[in-house]
Amino acid sequence: MSGFFSGKLAALDPYVPGEQPRDMQYVKLNTNESPFPPAPAVLQAVAEEAGKLNLYCDPECTRLRAAAAALYGLAPENILPVNGSDEALYFAFTAFCDSTRPMAFADITYGFYPVFAAMTGTPAHIVPLREDFTLDPADYCGLHENIVLANPNAPTGLALAPADIESILRSNPDNVVIVDEAYVDFGGESCVPLIGKYENLLVVQTFSKSRSLAGARLGFALGSPALIAGLNTVKFSTNPYNVNRMTQAAGVAAIASQDYTLENCRRIVENRTYTAKALEAMGFRVLPSKANFLFAAHPAAEGQALYSSLKKRGVLVRWFDKPRIRDWLRITVGSREQMDALLAALKTILHDERGV
Amino acid sequence: MSGFFSGKLAALDPYVPGEQPRDMQYVKLNTNESPFPPAPAVLQAVAEEAGKLNLYCDPECTRLRAAAAALYGLAPENILPVNGSDEALYFAFTAFCDSTRPMAFADITYGFYPVFAAMTGTPAHIVPLREDFTLDPADYCGLHENIVLANPNAPTGLALAPADIESILRSNPDNVVIVDEAYVDFGGESCVPLIGKYENLLVVQTFSKSRSLAGARLGFALGSPALIAGLNTVKFSTNPYNVNRMTQAAGVAAIASQDYTLENCRRIVENRTYTAKALEAMGFRVLPSKANFLFAAHPAAEGQALYSSLKKRGVLVRWFDKPRIRDWLRITVGSREQMDALLAALKTILHDERGV
Repeated sequence: MSGFFSGKLAALDPYVPGEQPRDMQYVKLNTNESPFPPAPAVLQAVAEEAGKLNLYCDPECTRLRAAAAALYGLAPENILPVNGSDEALYFAFTAFCDSTRPMAFADITYGFYPVFAAMTGTPAHIVPLREDFTLDPADYCGLHENIVLANPNAPTGLALAPADIESILRSNPDNVVIVDEAYVDFGGESCVPLIGKYENLLVVQTFSKSRSLAGARLGFALGSPALIAGLNTVKFSTNPYNVNRMTQAAGVAAIASQDYTLENCRRIVENRTYTAKALEAMGFRVLPSKANFLFAAHPAAEGQALYSSLKKRGVLVRWFDKPRIRDWLRITVGSREQMDALLAALKTILHDERGV
Repeated sequence: MSGFFSGKLAALDPYVPGEQPRDMQYVKLNTNESPFPPAPAVLQAVAEEAGKLNLYCDPECTRLRAAAAALYGLAPENILPVNGSDEALYFAFTAFCDSTRPMAFADITYGFYPVFAAMTGTPAHIVPLREDFTLDPADYCGLHENIVLANPNAPTGLALAPADIESILRSNPDNVVIVDEAYVDFGGESCVPLIGKYENLLVVQTFSKSRSLAGARLGFALGSPALIAGLNTVKFSTNPYNVNRMTQAAGVAAIASQDYTLENCRRIVENRTYTAKALEAMGFRVLPSKANFLFAAHPAAEGQALYSSLKKRGVLVRWFDKPRIRDWLRITVGSREQMDALLAALKTILHDERGV
């Protein structure tokens, strides 16, 4: 790295987003996107807003925060809209952590947490999941460190009950517990109702998955007014206009389209059940997912080989070159057609190539 | 500040964006927005893109970087699109500075620089402008520190010639010189043509002003592949999908609408000349601006009083409660109608209230 840079930069190992290959049209099941377009009201709101792009967006996101407050049963001061939930997580690491304030998180979880830790000079306290990938809440009770839990977890899809998270919140009263609920709308139980009860609870949500807005970049940090005020200090010290006009309008319209969202989530859950059963019938071990993806492994096939064979057949899934999960695939639950394409490709691969 | 936060947060004094009052409809000349809507092609591109918001945006911004490369006469690896040019500046402070690598900048310049310095633990080396608000390049030659220059400067509107910036670049070969060209399209001379010549030059531009996209949040960091690679490390360690789908599409369409941009810039320059003359005729001292705003002071009126009287009359300008410039107003150059409203209000104020 060139001498122009601060020493901290050389140590960084940036996050690698899911691949977006352009060589052909894939059945894209690698980045947990929704197969459904955004709600019709979103398209209309965006088109209307575009004519006003010469004017700055509202840095306070007043309308969006009011709409989100109604959606979540919170007050506007409990809410910080962000440019995708990754930004909320980065703000949180920046606000709550430093070289003397570590962050604890699982060994198998969202791969961005260690990157945020490195970026902010935060010691990462890695807490291994159990052998079956479940999380033992006791590992976090009385830890007296900041904690981030993905719930449901990625890439496993396994969810904790809010009661288990409450035990963690109660036993770490002087530290922040971040519950990353990116995937909560597909059957998990949200901790948002606990926000009034625990000042140290920060919930992070996204409109990328259940609300079909991955390309609009909209997430929320939800928590006590004290925590949100601190995150706002970071926002107004880095990028006050972080959520653009079109995305603010899209967010308001998406919240108003709640029936559309719920119906799409219902269909994803239905396709998830369908796909999990079919995978199990083929001999896969499939974790019980509460997310819009499945985590699956086949006893007779290596993860990387399956990933590569699927890619050759035009089906993109996510494989992580990481201890403990090298033989697993993370498969986004998309439309029924996408799932059938995946299952057909897997059948061919397992039969033709491996004789399973 | 609550005990949850890292000590560095308590020391932060966040940036305060220009006010966005909602009590009435103002002639809004306080945030240097364009009075012209975005190009028609932008509206169409945004509307088309909205249907694909369920899919993540391209984190590499491939199409946008290709279009920007053609616009600027650079290669894609010279270009990093960002969520507003503030983000480019924050990335730069993060990449190039730390407690042992200070940043030098003027006492009267963009108010976010000291905030970025505080946020990143960077010592700020404040270099006073001359009494007439011009910058003496000799103050920066051989400084051997990182340097950020707004050119044209804000809030003065005064511009440096690229030859002066070259002397700064040449005499600080081991440090980065950031030239913040947010306002360059209204008569300033860009340093972009120098990028191939100086590896330590980083130019920051924005589509907020000349391209009527303040509400879309689109800026660019332009520089040597080495500098851009370092900024990309920061991006991929904080927010890889920082520029959303709609804004990427808006940027491509805005670049394709170059005639529209040039015509709007021509009109702003024309309105600037018109307004400056009228202000001078009223007794104002007006700095020779190369930006889409004027910096003006009246010998018989205090800046804050003028600001308040204008606001009462529905005209919003920017006043800074800051040493050396307390008697100055920064006035955005808008449409001819907006300028006439400003001038009429000023005439009334100066005549009725002060008998000038």
